[in-house]
Amino acid sequence: MIVALKANVSKERKHQLIEWLESMGLTVHVSEGMYQTVLGLVGDTNKVDMDLVASLDIVDTVKRVSEPFKCCNRKFHPEDTVVEIGDVKIGSGHFCMIAGPCSVESEEQIVGIAKAVKASGANMLRGGAFKPRTSPYDFQGLKATGLELLKIARRETGLPIVTEIMSVTDLPLFDDVDVLQVGARNMQNFDLLQELGRLHKPILLKRGLANTLKELLMSAEYIMANGNEQIILCERGIRTFDDYTRNTLDLAAVPMLHELTHLPVIVDPSHATGIARLVPPMALAAAAGGADGLIIEVHNDPLHALCDGAQSLRPEEYDVLAGRIRAVREAVR
Amino acid sequence: MIVALKANVSKERKHQLIEWLESMGLTVHVSEGMYQTVLGLVGDTNKVDMDLVASLDIVDTVKRVSEPFKCCNRKFHPEDTVVEIGDVKIGSGHFCMIAGPCSVESEEQIVGIAKAVKASGANMLRGGAFKPRTSPYDFQGLKATGLELLKIARRETGLPIVTEIMSVTDLPLFDDVDVLQVGARNMQNFDLLQELGRLHKPILLKRGLANTLKELLMSAEYIMANGNEQIILCERGIRTFDDYTRNTLDLAAVPMLHELTHLPVIVDPSHATGIARLVPPMALAAAAGGADGLIIEVHNDPLHALCDGAQSLRPEEYDVLAGRIRAVREAVR
Amino acid sequence: MIVALKANVSKERKHQLIEWLESMGLTVHVSEGMYQTVLGLVGDTNKVDMDLVASLDIVDTVKRVSEPFKCCNRKFHPEDTVVEIGDVKIGSGHFCMIAGPCSVESEEQIVGIAKAVKASGANMLRGGAFKPRTSPYDFQGLKATGLELLKIARRETGLPIVTEIMSVTDLPLFDDVDVLQVGARNMQNFDLLQELGRLHKPILLKRGLANTLKELLMSAEYIMANGNEQIILCERGIRTFDDYTRNTLDLAAVPMLHELTHLPVIVDPSHATGIARLVPPMALAAAAGGADGLIIEVHNDPLHALCDGAQSLRPEEYDVLAGRIRAVREAVR
Amino acid sequence: MIVALKANVSKERKHQLIEWLESMGLTVHVSEGMYQTVLGLVGDTNKVDMDLVASLDIVDTVKRVSEPFKCCNRKFHPEDTVVEIGDVKIGSGHFCMIAGPCSVESEEQIVGIAKAVKASGANMLRGGAFKPRTSPYDFQGLKATGLELLKIARRETGLPIVTEIMSVTDLPLFDDVDVLQVGARNMQNFDLLQELGRLHKPILLKRGLANTLKELLMSAEYIMANGNEQIILCERGIRTFDDYTRNTLDLAAVPMLHELTHLPVIVDPSHATGIARLVPPMALAAAAGGADGLIIEVHNDPLHALCDGAQSLRPEEYDVLAGRIRAVREAVR
Repeated sequence: MIVALKANVSKERKHQLIEWLESMGLTVHVSEGMYQTVLGLVGDTNKVDMDLVASLDIVDTVKRVSEPFKCCNRKFHPEDTVVEIGDVKIGSGHFCMIAGPCSVESEEQIVGIAKAVKASGANMLRGGAFKPRTSPYDFQGLKATGLELLKIARRETGLPIVTEIMSVTDLPLFDDVDVLQVGARNMQNFDLLQELGRLHKPILLKRGLANTLKELLMSAEYIMANGNEQIILCERGIRTFDDYTRNTLDLAAVPMLHELTHLPVIVDPSHATGIARLVPPMALAAAAGGADGLIIEVHNDPLHALCDGAQSLRPEEYDVLAGRIRAVREAVR
Repeated sequence: MIVALKANVSKERKHQLIEWLESMGLTVHVSEGMYQTVLGLVGDTNKVDMDLVASLDIVDTVKRVSEPFKCCNRKFHPEDTVVEIGDVKIGSGHFCMIAGPCSVESEEQIVGIAKAVKASGANMLRGGAFKPRTSPYDFQGLKATGLELLKIARRETGLPIVTEIMSVTDLPLFDDVDVLQVGARNMQNFDLLQELGRLHKPILLKRGLANTLKELLMSAEYIMANGNEQIILCERGIRTFDDYTRNTLDLAAVPMLHELTHLPVIVDPSHATGIARLVPPMALAAAAGGADGLIIEVHNDPLHALCDGAQSLRPEEYDVLAGRIRAVREAVR
Repeated sequence: MIVALKANVSKERKHQLIEWLESMGLTVHVSEGMYQTVLGLVGDTNKVDMDLVASLDIVDTVKRVSEPFKCCNRKFHPEDTVVEIGDVKIGSGHFCMIAGPCSVESEEQIVGIAKAVKASGANMLRGGAFKPRTSPYDFQGLKATGLELLKIARRETGLPIVTEIMSVTDLPLFDDVDVLQVGARNMQNFDLLQELGRLHKPILLKRGLANTLKELLMSAEYIMANGNEQIILCERGIRTFDDYTRNTLDLAAVPMLHELTHLPVIVDPSHATGIARLVPPMALAAAAGGADGLIIEVHNDPLHALCDGAQSLRPEEYDVLAGRIRAVREAVR
Repeated sequence: MIVALKANVSKERKHQLIEWLESMGLTVHVSEGMYQTVLGLVGDTNKVDMDLVASLDIVDTVKRVSEPFKCCNRKFHPEDTVVEIGDVKIGSGHFCMIAGPCSVESEEQIVGIAKAVKASGANMLRGGAFKPRTSPYDFQGLKATGLELLKIARRETGLPIVTEIMSVTDLPLFDDVDVLQVGARNMQNFDLLQELGRLHKPILLKRGLANTLKELLMSAEYIMANGNEQIILCERGIRTFDDYTRNTLDLAAVPMLHELTHLPVIVDPSHATGIARLVPPMALAAAAGGADGLIIEVHNDPLHALCDGAQSLRPEEYDVLAGRIRAVREAVR
């Protein structure tokens, strides 16, 4: 951490600050410039409240030089993490195609879609059983029944299943789920993250609507610090002033996250745009831009979907898209 | 709900859409304009996926004309709600002054601050026992011990206590807390909201970092739909491109919320700005702008505060501010 | 335009409103629903101040159903516009590769880069002569001299030149420039736009930092309404809370703009990210996502570039990228 | 400027970087920490492209420690600037009340409003003659005629006049205007700013929709660096995800700007909210929060206003508000 003091600070006040910093176990390197004194702090600077130091009247600026994330930091773990779910691998060149409906609605629906997307090349099945809805009056998902239907679809197709968990209290129901998804609204539900850190199964962690990449990585850190290192990050659009799409897909987050962390990064073009006809171009863009996979909503009857039909592709649209994604991946290899 | 169709839509497709809408129990009023057909939908339109309808290729625009929030809607409940905690009232002209440290650190600290802020005119005590922190390596609060220390401070001063709950599993510990706070990161933790709806005590609901007023009201609705109508809303800054303050205090939300809902609305200038010296001007602005109360961080030793010291006032600063707030309230009455 | 009135509005006040609307030359279709009266307005609704109507106390909501842009609207001009600059075509399957330095610095520099990017497949040369800089103390460009150097580079390579114009008063100097660029900060400099509408040469119109797609199209409309229909739109990143990249590239704007308008849309990954190593993945993503071209900064000596070196590729990096872009374009055709 | 290098950088590369920095006329202080080398740069660091240095692979972070604004910086000019227009003073405790219609429409209108707002205590008259409109099809103002009508209103009331200038070419028409306003869309129209810097009359500089405080100050710097030091800054709302008000009023910008600069800062609650009934609470909030003045839209017939009627107060509403503003200013003195 680097602390630059204001010009003309008295020796005494400088000394007080240095003493206080040293009292917190830090070593302080003082560099007296012509106009300004700069302190370099070495030690466990996580203990220091950077905002507090910055707010002192003798301090000009404070800058952390080391990121506070450790487990997920590529600096300390240069090789890509490859998350494995049965035969499916994600990361380091392994590309995953996750597809399925927003909500599980019936056995016929989920098994039908699972078979269709598998035939198109998907290697994992998504489907919501517990649904976070802005309104308490909206459909909240089939819950436990939905999880059972997902398992039936898995049995029929062999596709591992991904589904969202919203609460620690539901954990026992997710025992036999392959990948647990943390939704955007729960990205900073720290109690949930800590519990998931104690599991031995992959977590799909979605970026929150208004969270920075650093905050996303700190949330991954909550899981990893508890022992679970199988994390897939997911960019799914951020909230901006823009009003034509539901969210703004921040695709540059993909190569930036690849620099910062060794974890795989996938993209959800369905939630990012909220509009089915924008999903194919954004899916192709994500594949070209280096994503490690795509999670796409597919529904066999979007007109009657119980939620989020507007952003779902029909199976035949997904089939065409899957072929084009393979072509793009071939082209950028 | 109003659905405007595109120009030149065939009669057949119009008919199909109307039939489908009617199959969902809605009455459809058709208005044929010179250039455009407009459908007026009457009935329980919450069942209809507005985004799906909007995404149909024959549809131009869709517009909900009734807000989806009911319990908290001023239209159906024109009188201000007054939340009562013992002798303290909030709303409809009753102004609350909540003050205290970011985190409870020790008995001496919390009792000392409680006495000081009471002397300055505060009528409720805040203090964090369970702390949501971006980093798993940061101080997470004294938890159960912190709650006990708050109760000691209450006993010593008579001030009701407000403190944040982060997880349903912690609920039993909060039995004897006066007001439960839902933090910004948990504004859409729907399981938590539903549980709080089953309690018989006031909830202080903070607006999420990137949530609209409608989303804030829908979260209040989650609590109210479960039977608990004692809710205090809190504006605490939103995330924008702006980089001088931690968040951007959206003060116009106060009069706008007063229009939309009968619930009281308070302001948290400490978290909104993140900088102690901006707290007084923003607290005065909130009082002048019609807020029903203020929640302000006060610490007797900001330099050593375990978290968020940068935004805390010292007791003597709070004392001066409290007097100025009273003067402003007098002026705008 | 559709105006939904509040419930329980008196007949008299309804009548007053309808009369006022009719006094502005509009035909008003009244649709009395069970709970709500809806007015459909037909005629030249651009004369009506939608915000004023919305603010009336008897009005619930107002919704424009027709976009206010006409010349650039795909509804009235379904075929793609192809902008032609000599042999170079942009739009409707014609892809342009614009490359060059942020600023023109010397004859050697601009000619050298022009030859290099031409060899890599670029078909237009960019280079700033008039530079909009946040600080008055930063390098402002070589101005008229810079334009002369660009023309020398054009003579040496045959590449048409694109360069930014910042002020109406500089117009005479741009007589012999092939494409005039309007930068993000000037997207709503309406006087400049109107003057450019009187020219007979293509305009490259960049989206403003915080402008919606509708506003971008309205700015194109300012140019087109004055007679110049040769416009190339450019997505170059928007301002969000995100702090890892300079701006957030809003790639979904490309397919969305293609829906709304017949004008070609290109992408500037250099300014969008501000970081050279993110330019290749975002350029590939843009090509896969349907952009009609790319404008990329290339500098032969980024370390000494007078401005924006951080986002420039070296010629050899551009050469590799250009080949990959061709491969992606081939894959998505 | 402080440059922190990455760990494990070779001596040779460190040496190259230091040499390059020194070649730009800087003195480099090297501080070797245990884990990290930190360079302190002294000299005219404005010449150095911070983004370029930050992008070098051996560099971890770069931090400017001195703000790039000089003329408007409070550090170099601790006393408040007081802008004087005839008898009217703004800044350092002098509060200005600017009021008037969005657009000048007729002599009767502007004279009538001028008399009314003067009677309520306003000490300056605003009114748009040149109107920046998003759409080329909207009313663009009475232009030169509007300026003449403003002067008539000034003659009748003695109120100095404030009106927006959009283009350098219109400057001769503004010779007899008291205060020239630069609108939000032109905040970074650098050519215009430079020309205004050569005038000897006050400039009202509005913050752009998505501009940081630093950018606002750099734009003031463009004017001041050319010799004109009479600048009034104006906060008028920023663009955020929020959709209930037109913009989000960033009131904390007022005390923050007072810290950074000696220039007076006023607030425009009319454009910030876009809704007349939110203007009074936000005007009171601004007065309580330390603004040096308010610019408020007043119209005697908001229903027929040619633009922005939705945000205008009627004269009788302004009269009530003006009294309450005086009371709040008294309370916070």
